[in-house]
Amino acid sequence: MRIGLDMMGGDFAPAEAVKGVKLYLDAVASDAHLVLIGDESQLAPLLADAQLDQSKYSVVHSSQVIGMDEHPTRALKEKPHSSISIGFHLLKNEKIDAFISAGNTGAMMVGTFYSIKAIDGVQRPTISTLVPRENGSQGLLLDVGINADCKPENLVQFAILGSLYSKHILKIDNPKVGLLNIGEEEGKGNLLAQATYPLLKENKLINFIGNIEGRDLFSGKADVMVCEGFTGNIVLKLAESFYDISVRRNIQDDYLKQFDSESYGGTPVLGVSKPVIIGHGISKGLAFQNMILLAQQMIESKLLEEIKESFHSNS
Amino acid sequence: MRIGLDMMGGDFAPAEAVKGVKLYLDAVASDAHLVLIGDESQLAPLLADAQLDQSKYSVVHSSQVIGMDEHPTRALKEKPHSSISIGFHLLKNEKIDAFISAGNTGAMMVGTFYSIKAIDGVQRPTISTLVPRENGSQGLLLDVGINADCKPENLVQFAILGSLYSKHILKIDNPKVGLLNIGEEEGKGNLLAQATYPLLKENKLINFIGNIEGRDLFSGKADVMVCEGFTGNIVLKLAESFYDISVRRNIQDDYLKQFDSESYGGTPVLGVSKPVIIGHGISKGLAFQNMILLAQQMIESKLLEEIKESFHSNS
Repeated sequence: MRIGLDMMGGDFAPAEAVKGVKLYLDAVASDAHLVLIGDESQLAPLLADAQLDQSKYSVVHSSQVIGMDEHPTRALKEKPHSSISIGFHLLKNEKIDAFISAGNTGAMMVGTFYSIKAIDGVQRPTISTLVPRENGSQGLLLDVGINADCKPENLVQFAILGSLYSKHILKIDNPKVGLLNIGEEEGKGNLLAQATYPLLKENKLINFIGNIEGRDLFSGKADVMVCEGFTGNIVLKLAESFYDISVRRNIQDDYLKQFDSESYGGTPVLGVSKPVIIGHGISKGLAFQNMILLAQQMIESKLLEEIKESFHSNS
Repeated sequence: MRIGLDMMGGDFAPAEAVKGVKLYLDAVASDAHLVLIGDESQLAPLLADAQLDQSKYSVVHSSQVIGMDEHPTRALKEKPHSSISIGFHLLKNEKIDAFISAGNTGAMMVGTFYSIKAIDGVQRPTISTLVPRENGSQGLLLDVGINADCKPENLVQFAILGSLYSKHILKIDNPKVGLLNIGEEEGKGNLLAQATYPLLKENKLINFIGNIEGRDLFSGKADVMVCEGFTGNIVLKLAESFYDISVRRNIQDDYLKQFDSESYGGTPVLGVSKPVIIGHGISKGLAFQNMILLAQQMIESKLLEEIKESFHSNS
C-alpha cells in the first residue's frame, strides 16, 4: 500500500506535513509506504530532524508549488512539476494508491476529474464533511460545495455514496439517511427537495428516514445528511465559524472542540475510482495524520469496491 | 396607536402573553393602546393579578383557538372566532394598527396574505431573522423560510426590504447588503446566486458589498444578508440549535446568550401594507414585550411609507 502525500500544500507546509507523517508512523502499525511529494531541499532537513524509519517513506521531488489562490485549471497546466500535478500523475499511473493534499482545493478537484475517472454510473462525484454529534458519534453531510446546482437524481447518488462511506469508514450499520429540508413532512421544501423525497423513499440501497431540519444536524437523527452543495457549503462554513467564535471567546467545551477541522483531517472525493483526500488549508500535524489514516482505511476497506458494485447494478 | 396582540398564541399562552403586556406597560412610556384578543374567562384573573393600568388596554373576546399544528387555511376557515382570525379582521378594518401573534405560523402567513395585501410592486413578502454579531450590532438575514424557491428579482426585493428595515428599525445608516454565497468573487455560486449578483450590483436603492460566505454571518461584514428561504431557514434553525446546545452544555457566554429567541421576540412580515409580527411558539414574557415594542416602532417609524415609495417608483 503506497499513500501519496503533497508535502507543499496548505498554509503550514511543509513543516506540519512532516509532523503529520511522524505522528502517523509513530502511532499506527501499518505496512503503508508513504510517498512524500515536495521540494527535496526543504524536506531533507525536516525529515532528518524527525528521525523517521527510512524504510517507511520515500521522497519524490517536485520543483513547483500551486499557490492557494491560483486558478486551478491554469495552474495545473502551467505547473506540471508541482506537487499536485505529480501526485495525480503518480495516482493515474498506479505508483500510489491514494493521494492527499491540503493545497489548492480547486486544483485538487480539477486534478481528480482529469486524471482519475468517476466510477461508472456516478453522475457527480461529491465531497462531504464529518459532523460531530452530541452523542459522540459522527454524521456525514454531503455535498458541501462542488455541486452547487443539483438534480434530484444527484442527491439520491450522494445518499448512496454517503451511506457506503458511513458503513465502511465510520462503521455505522445501516446508516439512517435524512434529506436536509425546511419542514418534517413529505411535500415540504423547495422544488428540489420535494422532487427528491419520493426518490429517496423508494430507493432500496439506502435507509431513508425522511426530512431533517437545520436543528437536527447535530442531534444524530440521521447519519447521512443530503443536500445540494450550495446549502451544504454554507452550513459547513457556518459551523466552522461557530468553532472559531468559541475559540475567540475562550469557551472550553469538549463537544465544541470536535468542530476543530484538525480532528477530522480532510474530506475524500466520493464517487471517483481511487482515494483522493482534500485537506483544509489550515491543516496542521494532527490533520495530516488523520488524512493519512483515512487514506489507509479507504484502501483497506471494501468501500470503493462496493461503490462500484452499487452503481454498476444501478446504472 | 392601537396594537393588537393574540393572547392565545404560543406554547405558554395566555400567561406569558400577559407577562409581556405587563413588562411593556411598566417599562415603556408610550401612548399605545393594547388590544388583547383572547378568551375573556382565562384572561380576566391573569389581568387582575397583573394590576395593569386599565386605560392602557382593552380585551376583545375570542372563543376559539387555532392549534400550533392545525392546517393553516382550513383552520382559518373553520375557526372565524379564533384569536388569529379576529386579529386579522380587526387589522383589515383598521380597528388596530398592527397585529402580533406567537401562534400557528402558517395561519399567520395565510391570514396576512388574505386580509391585508402585499405593497404594490412587492412580488413576494418575506420574513427575516435578526443576527447577533460579535461586535454587538444586529444583522438581518432574509428570507428565512416562506420563499423556498426564488428568482433573482425576489432576492433583490428582499435586499431593498431588508435595507429599509435596517435603516428605520435597527438604525443602521446605509446598511451593507451581502449575497449569501459559497465563494467571494462575482461568478461564484449556484445559478440563482450567479444571476442575482449583477442585479444587486446595479441596484441604486441598496449598498451592495458583494458575496458573503457562511463564515461571515456573525462577523458584521454585511448588515443585510440575502438568500432564498430554503438556505435561510436551515441557517436559522442551525443557529438556534447551537444556542440550545450551549444551554444544554451549560456554556455561559454573553455573546451566545443573544441567540436566545426571547431577546429578539418575533419577525415582522416585510412587504405587506401593515405591521404583522410573528413570534416563536416558545415565546415568553420578554419576547412578547419585545414584539409589542417592535410593533410600536414600526407604526411610529417611516418604514412602511418608505417601502411603499421605493416599490412605487420601482414598479
